[in-house]
Amino acid sequence: MNISVLGCGRWGTFMAWYANKVGHNVMLWGRESSRNFAGLKDTRKNDYLSISDTIELNSSLEKVISFADLIIISISAQELRSFAKQLNSINEIQNKTFILCMKGLEASSGKRLSQVFSEEVGRRVNVAVWVGPGHVQDFVNNIPNCMVIGSENVEVTKMIVQELNSDLIRFYYGQDLIGNEIGAATKNVMGIAAGMLDGLNYSSLKGSLMARGTREISRLVRAMGGNDLTIYGLSHLGDYEATLFSLHSHNRKFGQAYVEGESFGKLAEGVSTVKALRKLSQQYAVELPICNALYEILFENKNAKETLENLFIRPVKFEF
Amino acid sequence: MNISVLGCGRWGTFMAWYANKVGHNVMLWGRESSRNFAGLKDTRKNDYLSISDTIELNSSLEKVISFADLIIISISAQELRSFAKQLNSINEIQNKTFILCMKGLEASSGKRLSQVFSEEVGRRVNVAVWVGPGHVQDFVNNIPNCMVIGSENVEVTKMIVQELNSDLIRFYYGQDLIGNEIGAATKNVMGIAAGMLDGLNYSSLKGSLMARGTREISRLVRAMGGNDLTIYGLSHLGDYEATLFSLHSHNRKFGQAYVEGESFGKLAEGVSTVKALRKLSQQYAVELPICNALYEILFENKNAKETLENLFIRPVKFEF
Repeated sequence: MNISVLGCGRWGTFMAWYANKVGHNVMLWGRESSRNFAGLKDTRKNDYLSISDTIELNSSLEKVISFADLIIISISAQELRSFAKQLNSINEIQNKTFILCMKGLEASSGKRLSQVFSEEVGRRVNVAVWVGPGHVQDFVNNIPNCMVIGSENVEVTKMIVQELNSDLIRFYYGQDLIGNEIGAATKNVMGIAAGMLDGLNYSSLKGSLMARGTREISRLVRAMGGNDLTIYGLSHLGDYEATLFSLHSHNRKFGQAYVEGESFGKLAEGVSTVKALRKLSQQYAVELPICNALYEILFENKNAKETLENLFIRPVKFEF
Repeated sequence: MNISVLGCGRWGTFMAWYANKVGHNVMLWGRESSRNFAGLKDTRKNDYLSISDTIELNSSLEKVISFADLIIISISAQELRSFAKQLNSINEIQNKTFILCMKGLEASSGKRLSQVFSEEVGRRVNVAVWVGPGHVQDFVNNIPNCMVIGSENVEVTKMIVQELNSDLIRFYYGQDLIGNEIGAATKNVMGIAAGMLDGLNYSSLKGSLMARGTREISRLVRAMGGNDLTIYGLSHLGDYEATLFSLHSHNRKFGQAYVEGESFGKLAEGVSTVKALRKLSQQYAVELPICNALYEILFENKNAKETLENLFIRPVKFEF
């Protein structure tokens, strides 16, 4: 099958590498001005992997779209709306299948990425998401994981899984797009909280964080019309190992650096998700104590130690 | 209040230390022949902590029972039945409140420890359990955690929490004794599985283990008449940090040593629980794929790598 990957950051480049590895013809798109793209053109590698010569690097959106049946998008979540607008101006997108491989929510609206994409792409296309645990650093070392493909059309889900499944990534069919997207985005928020607990020498409270974090996000998913069990599956709880405990996790590292007063360089994706969750909490009238505490810490300058202590070591009560 | 602790292993000794620290009069019981007891008598300390001179060490069960209103039991789970028989011969146990602070199931019957205890103690007593995350090594370094007290009588639960709550251990009221006991026992099984994955260089699959482990135990709890959400609370999922990820976890270390072919010295408690779960799986007709895989590895000599690969990297399917 012909597959194009749009976005040549860490994940996009990995997905091109992976699609090629499992036997597809692959084009990888990046902006001509992108440093990642220039680096790949020069050296055919990045900090994580080398890509085969059979992967074509191309910076023409028209060309990579018309080449492929399956198109994987892996860009910054907050740029998806403007990027989708751009894609919509290309006639060839009609009837193609797009896979969004990002974990985020639109900060300004709280919308899920498949919603954002569908709002901007007027033509008939299929939209799926690729979520769940795994680090590029592990996959390229042949360490396997289980991930999820979800869409609103189970035939589309099955087709994608059939094309991409391997011993390295074992895919499950997602049956709840709302739960899978909210779960994937919000695990980054729990990752930031975990990093803050690590930085405050409260790593032991990550147990409580797991129990209470899943619970509040599960309530949100139910209020949004999803299945409240989805959060306990691969897209959220199943991604906690990779996010709350891994040294590779950007969001965990960001949270730790934040409370240690160190600069982390770039903002973690979970920070935008915290903003989005403030909207969703209001819109669906669901209390999200952990997400709310992070909002106060990150955007209202509340003291992290005090806020997290109030949250986790507060007076006795019933557990649920 | 007067509190006695029966059992002077790592946890029993910690509980005596803790009850004393939060302001109670404490007696700690051990068998005269116990090496731990002799060590404490000689030095007033063990590998983890030193106990105050105000804690009375006593090896007369009659004396420590008649001394206390609240009696904490922390012995090997498999010895509880015979120990309870012994306690039942003491008249003074009438109307006392017992707290079982152990995480296990009776291997030969699959019974919960509060069941075992109640079967053997004919007199009117209150029975509660103390479960949830926390390592002695952390607590004595002033690292806090959240734990659960559960019983079938919420007034008993509240009384215990009021007497034992502190900034170091924040207690929640358990509302589902079945779920709390099954959850506490089975997290050790997931800990063994986690250690095996660590030892096989499959740590990344601990994410899947968390998602699928909680799911199968939740199904069991529901079949047994408990609340299927309890497993996602502190007694089980909330204990995963301390069990699946901590270097202190005996069960995790046992699992890792097992697949690395090293001897671990003593058997982890989760091994007996694996046996008990085989009974429960049959009795309640609930499939427990992870517990079953561990049974095959530990008791039927199946190859751990192959068995776990079949379990976690097996053909695609729906997630739930």
